[in-house]
Amino acid sequence: MAVALQLAERGLYTTCPNPRVGCVLVRDGQIVGEGWHRYAGEPHAEIHALHAAGQSARGATAYVTLEPCSHHGRTPPCADALVSAGVKRVVAAVKDPNPQVAGQGMNKLRAAGIEIDCGLMENVARELNIGFFSRMSRGLPWLRSKIAMSLDGRTALRNGASQWISCTGSRQDVQRWRGRSCAVLTGIGTVLADDPRLTLREPQLTAQESENGNRKTRSVSGSLRVVLDSRLQLPVTARILHGGNVRVYTVTHDSQKIAALEKVGAQVVVLPDVSGRVDLNAALRDLAANGCNEVLVEAGAVLNGALLQAGLVDELLIYVAPQLLGDMARGIAELGELTRLDQRIELEWQDVRNVGMDLRILARVKRK
Amino acid sequence: MAVALQLAERGLYTTCPNPRVGCVLVRDGQIVGEGWHRYAGEPHAEIHALHAAGQSARGATAYVTLEPCSHHGRTPPCADALVSAGVKRVVAAVKDPNPQVAGQGMNKLRAAGIEIDCGLMENVARELNIGFFSRMSRGLPWLRSKIAMSLDGRTALRNGASQWISCTGSRQDVQRWRGRSCAVLTGIGTVLADDPRLTLREPQLTAQESENGNRKTRSVSGSLRVVLDSRLQLPVTARILHGGNVRVYTVTHDSQKIAALEKVGAQVVVLPDVSGRVDLNAALRDLAANGCNEVLVEAGAVLNGALLQAGLVDELLIYVAPQLLGDMARGIAELGELTRLDQRIELEWQDVRNVGMDLRILARVKRK
Repeated sequence: MAVALQLAERGLYTTCPNPRVGCVLVRDGQIVGEGWHRYAGEPHAEIHALHAAGQSARGATAYVTLEPCSHHGRTPPCADALVSAGVKRVVAAVKDPNPQVAGQGMNKLRAAGIEIDCGLMENVARELNIGFFSRMSRGLPWLRSKIAMSLDGRTALRNGASQWISCTGSRQDVQRWRGRSCAVLTGIGTVLADDPRLTLREPQLTAQESENGNRKTRSVSGSLRVVLDSRLQLPVTARILHGGNVRVYTVTHDSQKIAALEKVGAQVVVLPDVSGRVDLNAALRDLAANGCNEVLVEAGAVLNGALLQAGLVDELLIYVAPQLLGDMARGIAELGELTRLDQRIELEWQDVRNVGMDLRILARVKRK
Repeated sequence: MAVALQLAERGLYTTCPNPRVGCVLVRDGQIVGEGWHRYAGEPHAEIHALHAAGQSARGATAYVTLEPCSHHGRTPPCADALVSAGVKRVVAAVKDPNPQVAGQGMNKLRAAGIEIDCGLMENVARELNIGFFSRMSRGLPWLRSKIAMSLDGRTALRNGASQWISCTGSRQDVQRWRGRSCAVLTGIGTVLADDPRLTLREPQLTAQESENGNRKTRSVSGSLRVVLDSRLQLPVTARILHGGNVRVYTVTHDSQKIAALEKVGAQVVVLPDVSGRVDLNAALRDLAANGCNEVLVEAGAVLNGALLQAGLVDELLIYVAPQLLGDMARGIAELGELTRLDQRIELEWQDVRNVGMDLRILARVKRK
C-alpha cells in the first residue's frame, strides 16, 4: 500500500478534479503491475496496473489507495475491470467518499467473489486527497490559506511595502502548493494593490515533479484563478486575467462590466449579496460544484479574516520570515475585536519545517 | 571535553555571577577526576576535579571548559593548583573573556612547563556561558526577551485579557529560563497591569535539575527582579516586592517614594533621564556591573519595542500558541512606523521545538 500511495502522489499536480490514486498488483509476493491516475478523462490507476500485469493479474491481490469505482464516468468502472482480470483480493486504503461510489465498488467486487479489505493506511490515503474528501463529504473545497509574514505576524508595512518578506525558497515552495490546488483564490483588494498573476511561475519545476515516469507532460499552470470582487472593480487589464481560466464572484449586476470581463476570457458569477459582500459560503460551494478539491487562498487580512470568521478556512500555510516589522505594520487576519479569549480561533500544528531562510508552519483550524 | 561541558551545565542555575565550568582529568585514557563549579565563592571546577583525582592528577591531562583562572578572587587561582598537582597538559575549550584572566591563566601554565591547547568545542563552551562572555566583552548582559503570543503575533486581547495564551508546558519551561538568568527584567506597565511575582514558581523542578549529584541544594529563587519605572509608580504592595532582591531603575528623584520602596527591601537606582524615560543602556550596564550575565525580559510591547530599537535585545524566546487573536489584539513590539523594509529587525533562527501544545522559537537579533 505504501508503494501504491507513492504512485498516487505522482498525480499530485495533475488529477484535478479527480482524486490521486495508485494501484499495485501483487502475486506470489511479487509486484506484477503498477499504475496511477494521471489526468481526469484518462484511465484510472487500476486500469494502468492491470494493463502492466497482463495475464499475471489473474489470482493477484490489488492494493489500491481508494475504493475502485463502480460507475460509468468518463471511463468504465474499475470494479468491472478487476473482476474480468480475475483478481482474487482487493485491499483498499479507504472507501470512496463519492456518493456515486461509496461502498458500491466494494459490493460489486464482493458479489463477484473477490475478497475485500478496506482501511489499510487510511489516514495517509485521506490526507493525500484531503480536498477530494472535503468536496465529496461537505460540498466544500479544502481551503488552505497561504500567508507570508514576519515573526511578529505582519505581512507588510503600514504603507503596504511587502516585497519581499519571504525568501526565494518559500516563494518556490508556494508554487508547489499552487500546483496541487484546483484553484487559487484572492480578493479584489490584493488584485488592486499588487496586481498578481497567481499562475505557476516555474512550470519546469512542476512538470519535473509531476513527471516521474509520466512521459506525457501537460502544463499544470491551468489552476483556476478566482477573484472575490463584490463591486466588480477588477480592471480588464489586470495581470490575473492573462491566459484566461479566471472566475470572478460578485454581487454587482453590471452587465456592461460583466461583458467587458467576459470579453477578456473571465467567467463572472453573480452571487447573493450578504451585506454588500459576496456570500463566501456560496462562492466556495460553487467552486466545489465545479470540481475544486483544494483551494489556495492568497489574500490580505480582510479576506483572510472574513473566511476565518465564516469557519471556511481549513488550514493555514504560513511562511515566517526571521524578522520583526513592529506593531504598526499590517496583521494577517482582521477578526474584529475579540473581548473574551474563548472567541479566539484555535489551531493544531500540522507540520513545522525550515524552508530556505523561513520557517514554514502548517496549522489546521480546530472545529468547535 | 564533552563530559566536562555536561558537568559545567549542572551549574546552569546556580553559578551566577560566575561562569558555568566543568573539568575532567584524564590519565592513561581513564577519567581520574571530575568537577564542576557549583556556587560563586565555592571552589572552581578544577579544584573539585583535582580533589577527586588525588595523587592520580600527576601526569594527567585536564579538560576544562574555560581557561583556568590566574587571579586571586574569592578563591585562589586554579592555574596554581593545576601546576602544584603536577598536571601535564591542559586543554581548554575557550579563553576566559574576563580581563583579569584573558590568557594569563594559559601563560602561567605554559611558564610552568604545562602543555596547553585551547579551542576544543569552543562554540559549545561559549554558548553555555553566553551571558558571562557578553558581560565581560561588552559590559552588557545577554538580553533574552520572552514573549508568549498567538500565531498571529498577539500577546493579549485589546482589553488586556491574556490568561492563558501559552500552555502549562510553556509556563513551566519559562521557569527554567528564569532560573538560569541572573535577573528578570520587566516594565512598570506590566507590573501595574498583571502584578506578577517573577519568582521561580516551581523551586522543586529547578532544584532537581540543578542537582544531578549536587547534594547541597540551595534555593535558586533568588534571581534579581528588575523593574524599569521612570515615574516611580511601583506600589509598595506590588507582589514583585515580596521576598526582596528587587532593583528599580527610575529617573524620578522622589526621596519619599524611594524611602518607601527601600523600606520594603527594594534597591532604587536613579538614572539619567532620556526624554522622560530610563536610559536603557545605562540600566543594563549597571546590571552587568552588578554581575548579571543573562537577563530575561518579561514585558509588554512598549518595553520590548524600546529595547529592540535600542539594539539591546540579543535573543527572542517566543512561545507560539496554536491560535489566532486577530488584528485588533495587542502586538509584541512597538517599533513605531517603519516606512522601508530595510528598517526591519532581522533575526536568525536558533532553535525551534514543540513545548507542550506550543511552538517555542528561539531567534537571535542580527547585528547590522
